[in-house]
This record gives sequence, structure tokens and C-alpha cells, in this order.
Amino acid sequence: MSDNTILHPTTIVIFGATGDLAKRKLFPAFYNLYIDGRMPKGFNILALGRAENTDENFRNYIKENLKSFSRKNVTTEDWAGFQAHISYFQHQLDEEDSYKKLSQKLENFDKVYGTRGNRLFYLSIAPNFVSVISNHIKNTSIASDPDRDRIIIEKPFGHNKESAIELNNLLSQTFKEEQIYRIDHYLGKETVQNILAFRFGNSIFEPLWNHRHIESVQITVAEEVGVETRASFYEQTGALRDMIQNHLLQILCMVAMEPPVSLESGEIRDRKVDVLKSIRRISPDKVDHYAVRGQYGRGKVNGIKVNGYRQEEGIAPDSNTETFAAIKFYLDNERWENVPFYVRTGKKMKEKHSYITIQFKPLPHSTFSESSSLLSANRLIINIQPQMDIRLLFMSKKPGLSLELKPVEMIFDNFACQTDTPEAYETLLLEALIGDLTLFMRSDQVEEAWDVVKTIQETWEKNKDSSFPNYEAGSWGPEDSNALVERQGHQWV
Amino acid sequence: MSDNTILHPTTIVIFGATGDLAKRKLFPAFYNLYIDGRMPKGFNILALGRAENTDENFRNYIKENLKSFSRKNVTTEDWAGFQAHISYFQHQLDEEDSYKKLSQKLENFDKVYGTRGNRLFYLSIAPNFVSVISNHIKNTSIASDPDRDRIIIEKPFGHNKESAIELNNLLSQTFKEEQIYRIDHYLGKETVQNILAFRFGNSIFEPLWNHRHIESVQITVAEEVGVETRASFYEQTGALRDMIQNHLLQILCMVAMEPPVSLESGEIRDRKVDVLKSIRRISPDKVDHYAVRGQYGRGKVNGIKVNGYRQEEGIAPDSNTETFAAIKFYLDNERWENVPFYVRTGKKMKEKHSYITIQFKPLPHSTFSESSSLLSANRLIINIQPQMDIRLLFMSKKPGLSLELKPVEMIFDNFACQTDTPEAYETLLLEALIGDLTLFMRSDQVEEAWDVVKTIQETWEKNKDSSFPNYEAGSWGPEDSNALVERQGHQWV
Repeated sequence: MSDNTILHPTTIVIFGATGDLAKRKLFPAFYNLYIDGRMPKGFNILALGRAENTDENFRNYIKENLKSFSRKNVTTEDWAGFQAHISYFQHQLDEEDSYKKLSQKLENFDKVYGTRGNRLFYLSIAPNFVSVISNHIKNTSIASDPDRDRIIIEKPFGHNKESAIELNNLLSQTFKEEQIYRIDHYLGKETVQNILAFRFGNSIFEPLWNHRHIESVQITVAEEVGVETRASFYEQTGALRDMIQNHLLQILCMVAMEPPVSLESGEIRDRKVDVLKSIRRISPDKVDHYAVRGQYGRGKVNGIKVNGYRQEEGIAPDSNTETFAAIKFYLDNERWENVPFYVRTGKKMKEKHSYITIQFKPLPHSTFSESSSLLSANRLIINIQPQMDIRLLFMSKKPGLSLELKPVEMIFDNFACQTDTPEAYETLLLEALIGDLTLFMRSDQVEEAWDVVKTIQETWEKNKDSSFPNYEAGSWGPEDSNALVERQGHQWV
Repeated sequence: MSDNTILHPTTIVIFGATGDLAKRKLFPAFYNLYIDGRMPKGFNILALGRAENTDENFRNYIKENLKSFSRKNVTTEDWAGFQAHISYFQHQLDEEDSYKKLSQKLENFDKVYGTRGNRLFYLSIAPNFVSVISNHIKNTSIASDPDRDRIIIEKPFGHNKESAIELNNLLSQTFKEEQIYRIDHYLGKETVQNILAFRFGNSIFEPLWNHRHIESVQITVAEEVGVETRASFYEQTGALRDMIQNHLLQILCMVAMEPPVSLESGEIRDRKVDVLKSIRRISPDKVDHYAVRGQYGRGKVNGIKVNGYRQEEGIAPDSNTETFAAIKFYLDNERWENVPFYVRTGKKMKEKHSYITIQFKPLPHSTFSESSSLLSANRLIINIQPQMDIRLLFMSKKPGLSLELKPVEMIFDNFACQTDTPEAYETLLLEALIGDLTLFMRSDQVEEAWDVVKTIQETWEKNKDSSFPNYEAGSWGPEDSNALVERQGHQWV
């Protein structure tokens, strides 16, 4: 992707344009891209919703929401320019006729452009509607140009391996793989993309990036929030499906992948699939050894008393859904033999913090009077959010008359990144407009990722966890999560 | 060396106690060690000077100077305690009788201690007096206990290889090698000592620390000052002898040495001698290829017009003494094959700055759209003075919508080191009191170091440089210094 790509005229069709994601993320992203001059010269955003509405009304609704959710200020001038590109279109997801009208509408846009524009369909709807929309798109041939038409699909992409395969098959009847943009918004984050820059833009890390020098890898995505308004969805999903199968495994892929020959999307995605394939599959009887689940009970987050999961609105009082999961993965390949990759994620944790820890091996021999065990081993911490920095922990001379050591940190504070960085959705939508698939999930990536968690998922579904709730809201998760890493002499850091 | 070493009663005999070094460095160092509780329980400082003086007078003189030169404040209480340990002793360096009286004086101290105390002779005198003092010490047997008596000698230690050997032979008639503490005060600097901590207290640098990953090493010791009051000494010495042969080669040794088994002094000094031995000797006809000399002319330092070297007081108007030297060394060993070590030092340079640059090799292959040549290769900078920090230059994602790279720095700012750090002389004097030789130069180190610069020295002496003065005061040295590194596609950074 380059700064100078000239974009073809595009009509963006948003299914579910009156929903939460559209107002919080999609319209703000398009608006900010617009201000940055990154939208195509000719573009239309067609907002689809069930209810009757006027363009004007809908635009005002978007404007109000931009004030809350846009990264950049909403100025009169920018808004005047942007709003003209938005139209509202009343549409029923399951009515053939509605799609015919949509087809008509799209052709009208083409007339205005003077050319057949690109069409970008954004499915910001519940997963169970993907199938019906996809079928109707097929029947009305509104996405019949494989070079021009694209579909963006939000996670969850299926709810297990079988359903993901089914969904892929279904989509493939209408779209070629190159037209399908499966979003994992973590891949759009600056700090996550920086993993590639850090690993492959420098010559000094690659020689250290393997089992000879790395003791363990940790990936933590901790949330302070609970299920909020997503209770009914979350009850059916849980932390393993909601976070591990996608975000955490994707980050793991970026940390563990072999150097790509180029940044070409096929190349990057191939290297990621290689990682997923290499992850050791866990047999059902070993699930408890490799994986820990948790569900929060009452507790305090930031000093405020909060309910347990089972007390939240819309949650079953005997719910078996996990709100925390920690898993130890092994990658059976040359580079990562015997290096545990610990991943964990949870809701209502002590703090919102996503980060990667590369724990290097201890010194083979201590030259210093301190015994080796007293020296902290080197550690690289890549903070993803809300902090965005990179820290290298190393030993330095304690200032003073003796040659004693103490651990210190070298810090790269990516401050510019914190103040002037595009939102993940801006990056991802621009990539989709340009037609670069690198940051999106290919069908085999999704299926492999489901395969990785398959036995854990099935075992957890079959066997209720009688210890639930097993961690206090505002903590770092259940005790077993610590035991998981301590068994190998490690600890969460 | 440990914090808890109990020191034996010691008498410190300072030859040249009325000189510049004593007032600026030695007494302040002893005073600060005293405040820190690091002086031996029983200690006496016997200040030797040619003129008649009283203890009280001399003490007042020291007190006044402490106010200017002591790191810690001079309080009434501390001073009262400290001053009681100082006595003045009128002494003629070349009179046998004077040494007999000295002997008497030392025995008196022993009576006060109730035991034969350690004796530490500090030779803070011009090099040509070392011989006479050493002989008299021998003849009066005042340093006859090899376990208790030590001699500290300031640089310059000889003025070439032959004279250094001669001096070592002379000293060896009175002292065993373990009694001789040859000072290179650079080795007492926090940031120089930290090189050992950094290299051998961490597991991630050693794998990178060799010709496979390092492109070149640079060591710069730049001074803003000129020859000041040292004109007659400097005229006979020059940058090669004054700085390269000792400070810069010692730093080079610490950067290049093999990992020592322990911090035991013999071990560290062996590893350093190994480095000196491995340095490729330069044949006379190749001196111009490997070495560049310079002498400053008029110019501006910090915006103020200053004289050229030849206009300084006490300098010959056609002086051939170099005030700048840059040399390219190669180490012919497994670790450093073909890695140039560029060292440079000069007076009246643009700024006072001593630092080490480890320039890593460029990426073998650029995954990114930027061609490899546009990516900055990784670089580690160890700032010795006046800044004291460690910086790692690496490539990171440029914040924004594209995956482009930019060079950034990870910084360890050793702030504690800047505010709360002992002076080099405190560290070195304490080591001498304890009896740890690690930070001092062994005879073979000194001789090897002279051998390393021998042909350059001889060639420069024989052939006047007709281009002198060849750099402006306030610059980074002569143009040829840049050419020296640019020939290999490098540059001073």
C-alpha cells in the first residue's frame, strides 16, 4: 500500500448502518479518511436500515455521533463536504425486492460516476444474516465484478470450525477469495502493525528471535469492561471464541511468523497460516493442562463495586460462559521448539492493558558476583494499548562504587503514535478501498484458528466448570492462570 | 569488590600533594569516600611537598579547594573528622635523608594504629621522578611488605614501548606486579564500567556482539579544551600518546574483549591483553592508510574565537605535535574479523563528547517497500560523558495509514548515574585501598598498548605533517578523518 494509490470511484454499501459499529467506528473512520484526503475521488456511502428515514435525518444522526466518536474535529466545512456523500436507503435484509431496488440505486450511482464504480459491501450485522445477504447479493448480481466488488465481514466468522467452513463455502458461491475482507480489527492497530516493522525492519532482533534465545512469549489482552450491552451475544460466545480464536492468535502469528519475502498479502497470510498449522493441537484429556477458564464474580474495578458475571442483565444465573481464558500453546517447528506461548484474555480485569512480552533466556553464566538467578533476564515488552511503547529490560551497573547490577529499562515511547494515529478501522477500510488483503483474514486462516481451539472449545462446552465464578472482578483472573505458567517456573509479567 | 570489605589501617603517602591533581581529584576523592564511610577505620594521609608548611596551613588549603572540587558539600562536622587524618610532611624527592625521615614518620603511624598499617604511595608527580622515588623507596625499605604496600602511578606510563619496559623493570626491583596500580582514570568512570555490566550482565547482546552482526565500532573522545596549562608536557606528548595509547585503547578493550569467566582482576586483565595482542600492527608504509593526525588552527569554540595550537603559550610556532588523531584498527581474531574499530580524539573539538557507537549491519533483505539502503541500520550508542545514556536506534512503523518505516531511538537515560555517581578517582582509590587490581593497568597491558601505536608514533615523529594546522578549532577534526571512514562506506556518527 502506498500513499499515492489512486482510488477508483466506489460505492460503499453498509448493511446495518443504523447499528452501533456504524456510528462508533465506520462513519468516523470514513470521515477521518475523507479529511485526510484518502477517500476515492468519487464515493458514495449508502446506509442501509430497516426503518423509513430521510437522507437529511440520517446525516444529522451521523453528524451528532461524529461529535462523540470522530478522532478529528467536526468542522462545518469538512462536514458539508462529507455529508453530501451519504444517502440513506430503506432496506429489508430478507426481501428479494429490496435488493432489486438496491441494484437500481447502485446503477444510478454508476451513471453519476460515468463509469461502473467499485462496490464495497460492509456487513455490519448479526452473523446469522450473512447467509441471506450473501444469497441475495448473488441472485441480484450486484457484486458480479470480481475485480471491483468486495465484501467486508465482521467477526465472529462462524462459531466453530464447521460453521466457519460452511460460511466460507457459502460466500465462495458469490465471491472469490480475493473479494472477501474478513476483519480482525486488532490487525489494524498501529502497535500491532509495528510488530512487523520491528521484527523485519531491523537486523538485530531476528538473530535473537527463536528458541535459542527466547524463554517464553506472553500475550495479554485484558479488558476492564464486562459484557455491557452484548449479554445475549456473549453468553453464546465466551472469551475463547470472542478473543483467543481471533485477536490473540493473530497477534501470536505476527510474533511467531517466519520472515516474509515481501509485504505482499498472499505472502504474509501464508506465513501466518504456517504458524497456525504449527501450533500443537491439544487432545481432549490434556485440555486442563494447557488451558484455564474463568468467570468473574463480584468485585471491585477501579475501586467501584461491581456485579459478578452471573448477576449481569441478560446472563443466566448458572451461566457456564467463560469471561477469562488462558492457554499455553506450543509451536512445533524449528524456530519455536519448546518455547511456551502463554496467551490470556479476560473481562473485568484489574486494568485495560494489551501487551506482548518476549522473555529472553537467563544468562548462561554469571560473570558477576550475583548468582545468575538474582539477575533479571532480558525482557522485551511491546505495549499495544492503551500504552503504546516498547520497553527493553536489561541489567546495568548500579551507580556507585561497586560493580553491582540492577535491572533498568530502555524505552521507546511511541508518543506520536498516541496523538496522531489513525484508528484501526481507518487503516482497515482504506486497505479494503485500495484492495489490499494483507490485514484481513483468509478463509484458511480462519479455519486453522478454529482448529487450534477446537478441542478446548468442545471440552469446555461439554464440561461445566463448577468453580465458576472463580475470579474476582478487578483481579488478574483465576489462580489457575498463575499455576499454568508457574508450573514451568515462569510468571505473568 | 564488595560493599562490606573491611579495610586494614592504611597510611596514604602522596608525592606531589601540593600539585594540581591532588587538590582537584585526590583529596576530594578521599573526602567523599570518607563521608560515604568507605575509608579504612584507621587512615592517615601524609601529604608530601617540597616547601615548609604546617599541618594547619595545609589543611586549610585543602579545605578551600574541597569547596570548589568536592562532589559532596563540605560541612563543619565532616571536615572536622576528615582533617584530623591529614598531615603535611616536608620532603625532598631526591634526598636520601628525606626518605629516612619519612620512614620514621610511617613507623610512628604504625605505633598509633597498634599494627603495621598498609602503605599506599601515590605518585602524583612528573614521570621523570618515578625512577628516583622508586629507588629511594627501595633503599629505605618503606614498602617492604608486598601484601600491605602499594604504589599508584599516574599516566603517562613511559613515552613509548621501550621506556615503558624500562620503567616496569625499574619498578619491579621494588614492587611486585600485584603492588603496582597504574591508573587510567577512564576505567573508573561509571559509564565505562557499565560496558562490562551491559555486555556480560545480559543475554541478548552477546549473540550479536561479533563480525556477523556488527559492521563497525566507533570510539570518540572529543574535548573542547586545548592544552591549557599543560603546554610543555603536551608538546612532548600529543594526542596519540596522551589519549589513544591509554584511554581509547582501554575502552576498545572493554568493547571487544571475550567474556571473562569472572570479574577477578587477573581474568579481566588477561582478556584485555588478548585484545591488544590481536590488534593488527600497522607497517610504517601503511600508517597513512590507517591513521590520520591533525592540529587545530584558529577557529571558534562555542561561538568564541580561539587561537590555533601554534599560537598557544609555550607552543612552538612550527610545532609538529598532533592535537587530533583518528585511527582505524582491525582485530585479527575470530570475533572481529574485518570489523573496523575507528577511534578518534582531539582537542578544541566542536563539543565535549565521549561515546561509543556500535554500528550493526544493515538488513540482509528488505521486506519493506523502502529499498534496504533507505533503512537505517541498527545502532547502539553508549554515551560516556558528559551525557550518560545508552541509545538503541531501530526502525519503527511511521504512525499513519501506510506501513512505512522511520528510525527511532530507545533510550536508557542513566539519570541516577548523573546525579549520584562517584568520581572516577573515588572508585579507583577505593579499589587501591581494597587491593583490587581490576581497574588498573598491568605491565603487559601497558607495553602491548605502546606496541599497538608504535609504528604510527615513530612515523609521525619522523615525518612532519606539512598540512598543520589542518582543522579549525571548533570543528570535528581534519577532512582526512572523514575520508578514513568514508573509504569503507562508513561515517562518523
